Amino acid sequence: MSAEKCINTLRILSAEIVQKANSGHPGMPIGMSPVAFVLWTKVMNYSPSNAKWPARDRFVLSNGHGCALLYSLLHLTGFKLSLSDLQSFRQLGSLTPGHPEAHMTDGVEVSTGPLGQGLSNAVGMAIAERHLAVTFNRPGYDIVDNYTYVFCGDGCLQEGITSEASSLAGHLKLGKLIVIYDDNSITIDGKTSLAFTENVAQRYAAYGWQTITVVDGNSDLQGIEAAIALAKRTTNQPTIISLKTVIGFGAENEGTHDIHGTPLGDKGVAFLKKKFGFNPQQHFYIAPDVAAVFQKKKSEGEDKERKWMAKFAEYAVKFPTEAAEFKRRMEGKLPSDWKSKLPNYAGAKPDATRNISGTILNAIADNVPDLMGGSADLTPSNKTQLKNTKDFQAATPEGRYIRFGVREHAMCAIGNGLSAYGGIIPFTATFLNFIEYAFGAVRISALSHHQQIFVMTHDSISMGEDGPTHQPIEAIPLCRATPNMTLFRPCDGTETVGSYICAMENKKGPSVICCSRQNLPQLPGTSVDGVVKGGYVLNEAKDFNLVLVATGSEVELAVNVAKILQGSGLKARVVSMPCVENFDKQSQSYKRQVLPLGVLVVSLEAAATQGWERFSHFQIGMRSFGASAPCDIVLAHFGFSPEKASSKILSFVKESNELFGNTGIA
Amino acid sequence: MSAEKCINTLRILSAEIVQKANSGHPGMPIGMSPVAFVLWTKVMNYSPSNAKWPARDRFVLSNGHGCALLYSLLHLTGFKLSLSDLQSFRQLGSLTPGHPEAHMTDGVEVSTGPLGQGLSNAVGMAIAERHLAVTFNRPGYDIVDNYTYVFCGDGCLQEGITSEASSLAGHLKLGKLIVIYDDNSITIDGKTSLAFTENVAQRYAAYGWQTITVVDGNSDLQGIEAAIALAKRTTNQPTIISLKTVIGFGAENEGTHDIHGTPLGDKGVAFLKKKFGFNPQQHFYIAPDVAAVFQKKKSEGEDKERKWMAKFAEYAVKFPTEAAEFKRRMEGKLPSDWKSKLPNYAGAKPDATRNISGTILNAIADNVPDLMGGSADLTPSNKTQLKNTKDFQAATPEGRYIRFGVREHAMCAIGNGLSAYGGIIPFTATFLNFIEYAFGAVRISALSHHQQIFVMTHDSISMGEDGPTHQPIEAIPLCRATPNMTLFRPCDGTETVGSYICAMENKKGPSVICCSRQNLPQLPGTSVDGVVKGGYVLNEAKDFNLVLVATGSEVELAVNVAKILQGSGLKARVVSMPCVENFDKQSQSYKRQVLPLGVLVVSLEAAATQGWERFSHFQIGMRSFGASAPCDIVLAHFGFSPEKASSKILSFVKESNELFGNTGIA
Ligand SMILES: [Ca+2]
Ligand SMILES: [Ca+2]
Repeated sequence: MSAEKCINTLRILSAEIVQKANSGHPGMPIGMSPVAFVLWTKVMNYSPSNAKWPARDRFVLSNGHGCALLYSLLHLTGFKLSLSDLQSFRQLGSLTPGHPEAHMTDGVEVSTGPLGQGLSNAVGMAIAERHLAVTFNRPGYDIVDNYTYVFCGDGCLQEGITSEASSLAGHLKLGKLIVIYDDNSITIDGKTSLAFTENVAQRYAAYGWQTITVVDGNSDLQGIEAAIALAKRTTNQPTIISLKTVIGFGAENEGTHDIHGTPLGDKGVAFLKKKFGFNPQQHFYIAPDVAAVFQKKKSEGEDKERKWMAKFAEYAVKFPTEAAEFKRRMEGKLPSDWKSKLPNYAGAKPDATRNISGTILNAIADNVPDLMGGSADLTPSNKTQLKNTKDFQAATPEGRYIRFGVREHAMCAIGNGLSAYGGIIPFTATFLNFIEYAFGAVRISALSHHQQIFVMTHDSISMGEDGPTHQPIEAIPLCRATPNMTLFRPCDGTETVGSYICAMENKKGPSVICCSRQNLPQLPGTSVDGVVKGGYVLNEAKDFNLVLVATGSEVELAVNVAKILQGSGLKARVVSMPCVENFDKQSQSYKRQVLPLGVLVVSLEAAATQGWERFSHFQIGMRSFGASAPCDIVLAHFGFSPEKASSKILSFVKESNELFGNTGIA
Repeated sequence: MSAEKCINTLRILSAEIVQKANSGHPGMPIGMSPVAFVLWTKVMNYSPSNAKWPARDRFVLSNGHGCALLYSLLHLTGFKLSLSDLQSFRQLGSLTPGHPEAHMTDGVEVSTGPLGQGLSNAVGMAIAERHLAVTFNRPGYDIVDNYTYVFCGDGCLQEGITSEASSLAGHLKLGKLIVIYDDNSITIDGKTSLAFTENVAQRYAAYGWQTITVVDGNSDLQGIEAAIALAKRTTNQPTIISLKTVIGFGAENEGTHDIHGTPLGDKGVAFLKKKFGFNPQQHFYIAPDVAAVFQKKKSEGEDKERKWMAKFAEYAVKFPTEAAEFKRRMEGKLPSDWKSKLPNYAGAKPDATRNISGTILNAIADNVPDLMGGSADLTPSNKTQLKNTKDFQAATPEGRYIRFGVREHAMCAIGNGLSAYGGIIPFTATFLNFIEYAFGAVRISALSHHQQIFVMTHDSISMGEDGPTHQPIEAIPLCRATPNMTLFRPCDGTETVGSYICAMENKKGPSVICCSRQNLPQLPGTSVDGVVKGGYVLNEAKDFNLVLVATGSEVELAVNVAKILQGSGLKARVVSMPCVENFDKQSQSYKRQVLPLGVLVVSLEAAATQGWERFSHFQIGMRSFGASAPCDIVLAHFGFSPEKASSKILSFVKESNELFGNTGIA
């Protein structure tokens, strides 16, 4: 049985998968089959029977468009992916979507395709491995000990997110991260000479990586194996292996951009089969000897897993606490006492919710060692410093505070990787406005059901002097429009506690916690339960004829507006709505109870008003960018003072009465 | 008069500006005053009397938080910025906002602060210079001939956008781009050793840049001048000068992160003054001899401008066409015949609006040499190839098609730079979903009033097989929530023409043109005027009792749904709303005419529904991520088939009648 036959089977199978769908990307799979074969049959530890075996090596297909190759590998090695699944590539509801989706397909570690995400996820996974290894391993018991392998192409390496993540990976000396770069000099537009002529190896050397070149990635299997072996031996630097390949190697139009994203056509597939000595009449054919080579991986994997389990059983005897803790964390369960240190803010002094957030983060971190994260160089502003742990650094991998540097996009993608690895609950922080720098990764958190807590401070124009370049306007509607994201905008300490409780307990998606820069009062009547319900009556008014619904810093404003409006005969109920998504999930009757039909509703939020029309008849919000000025001045300028807001509401009520006088409203 | 006294004046003035506001960033201005002095008094060409003199050197403060320094320079050299403006730093309505805003302040080239934007803008400005120089210069007449200087710090260099832009700048050999890196080893979190230990010079060498180090940036003025001179002489590579400085040099807490973003305090300012031999009792003091050094720049600039004008007058005699064209372009006027080649789609065959967009782009580009741009490596998919011009490359700077590579964020920031330079109308393209990779730059387009045309194809789940990682859901609401952005989602060729007409004529902000991957029919009744109005009645129904409002590919759906609903006695008017923003600008009476009160309105758009509650009572849209499957299947799966949509609408109408039977609706 020759390796070449196995490799050519991978090439042809991938081409057929794409051809059957008449859609997809054959070039990369055909070109990368040799290294995939070496990695998946000779190097990586994994157990197809149990894709979630904790000790497996992680494999990330950062150039996710080449997923026909990954699906071929998963099928051949015996993961839960049938031939019929391969033949349903890119069809509705199949396990083989057009780009890999981790929550869909057994054996897919992370969702990739948007370029650069995978490599950045992998940095997170390598951080997780290093941290969990130093946390759980004991002499003779390397319970956590795996490599993270990444395939990437020219596209990934051009993306800024990759530069950010790679620079940080070099800084952190993540020696068990191994990136294999499909250096084929082709992108969609054509040759890389069109736009990408930098010296990639030199750049990675500048980041502190080991760089290796394999000149003939099409057939030098020994060279490939040696390169990976060297990469594995080097434990104080991540490694990038530049693998010179021909895209679509062996196909009629090999080496051109035409083969990147276009099926070969029946003739092209037949050409490829003939080229490699296969029978063009046979479709999705896997020769028995080829099948055997890959199938062996299943029993090998089961064997490895059994040995690891036996070792873990010994470990559990000698280190029962650690073993129980490891299990708990890998199962994604919270410690039973996790809430015990949460502070109580009833009657406390006014404070900025960013400060409160910092206190809560630390209170949780004390009980929940799973909590790990940091800020994109805004620690003193985001107030995210964890006090009872060190920085996670090369020399102190036991630390749980990550210094991400000014790298928002990589930070959030690394968060996804930490979450994907297991055993870690990541939090990441910047100014709310700059979640937009990271949104490529943020939306994948939501799509892939990653738990990640985005601590987003300076959450409106009230951040003041830094001005409109830093003041979020559209960021809040953006998060609310994104499926499976939950955004919290707490109005005080109690609601911030509630927000963290929800975020910690939501294991199936990311949470955004918006925090104020400025002090806010602790409002009587706020509650954790109110946050869980998403929206609730904070201040009731007898025979109310108006509802004010507000979030975050504007809840205090609503309370003050309600007082002013009393003078004009308007009796305003105040609803706090820290979480629109949670409110949406309540019963229709609860929602109608909070926001009754037939009563005018006004929303107050210092952000773009988009979305509030769903709940309110009139919106007090932002319809322009902000301005640079001290907090109170900027708020008043845009109408967020009790006087200005009341006066606007009065005009609106008057206008409504004129228009709908006969409706009985207000 | 010593240079040191001038430099120390800059340091102290900047510190005082921040101190007066009691807010801002003194560290960078104090540290970078020496190189600022050299650059602004000995190197740069500019004319404070006319900040828009076309031949000026461009200066970009990429580390925009250090703007006290820029404001000091603008004031001292005689731009329209008074001492009182400096004293109003970070106050409402002042010309000195917390971060520089180009549309606010004379002499500020681009809005900076969000890190990495400025350097990327500068790459665009250097591209513009190179292209316009080769376009307009004639032997003996270098009408266009300027350098672009950038200040940046560690933060900018950590951002991915900067990596993208720098790699492209190296590829393009932008020899007149000179970046001065404030290499002070400090960021907000502390020392750069916490997170940023890469070898920056080696990385830039890998990009193909010249790298120069100045070891003593605090006082070696000759070294600084020599480095800049060398950078200027090297015309086939951009240059980065690593200037080793001490942040807040001379202040009590110099060299620490505390001085980055915190005012020095009165004592700290006094300390700084004493340190440099200034009188601590004098505030905002500018010694006459210091003032004279800077004021000289005004007359020098006027002199330079006069000489250039004289040269230009000669040029206008010899090359009247070129001169007139140069004037037209720099004034931002369109050629009078710019629309003459626009195609007419009435009665044409069905086609994808991405194809139509490509045809229109070319039709415009033939008449409008100002149009310049490209795609982030998706040219064959975005259909943006300009056929009658070359690629803009180092060897062919006359080309107008830019190969951006897979660098969405830098692409859009470069677009801002092209726009800021003048004479160019930039277009940039990717899949709509990936506008989120670039949104950091996109929002600054809007904030800074840059004309930029974002050609965003594959604009919904109908892109099909690539799946949810590539299918936009929240991108459309995001753009609509962003102030001063105009999003178009045309339903056919005629509306695509209308969208481009609006986008070309809107000189005060960016436009997003959303294009379909799939074929769409040319619908009878669509009109350019309808796009200008934003929304209009496409298909009228006599005695209509329902309005269907739709955008883009869902307009055809609405037309088909209306036909089906006829069978159930529902008479549906169909409204096409290609541009919500334009519709919003119409008179209340026009809006009521299109969407009358008292008639049920249903919106249809294959995107997150957020925002449509404003216009409609029921929304057919996306409430989850998409799925990987062929276009028609994915559309039907999510309810966007005539049958499914009709049936949903019927249920809704029934429910409404039950709830509001007495309202007389439907
Ligand atoms: Ca490639
Ligand atoms: Ca710095």
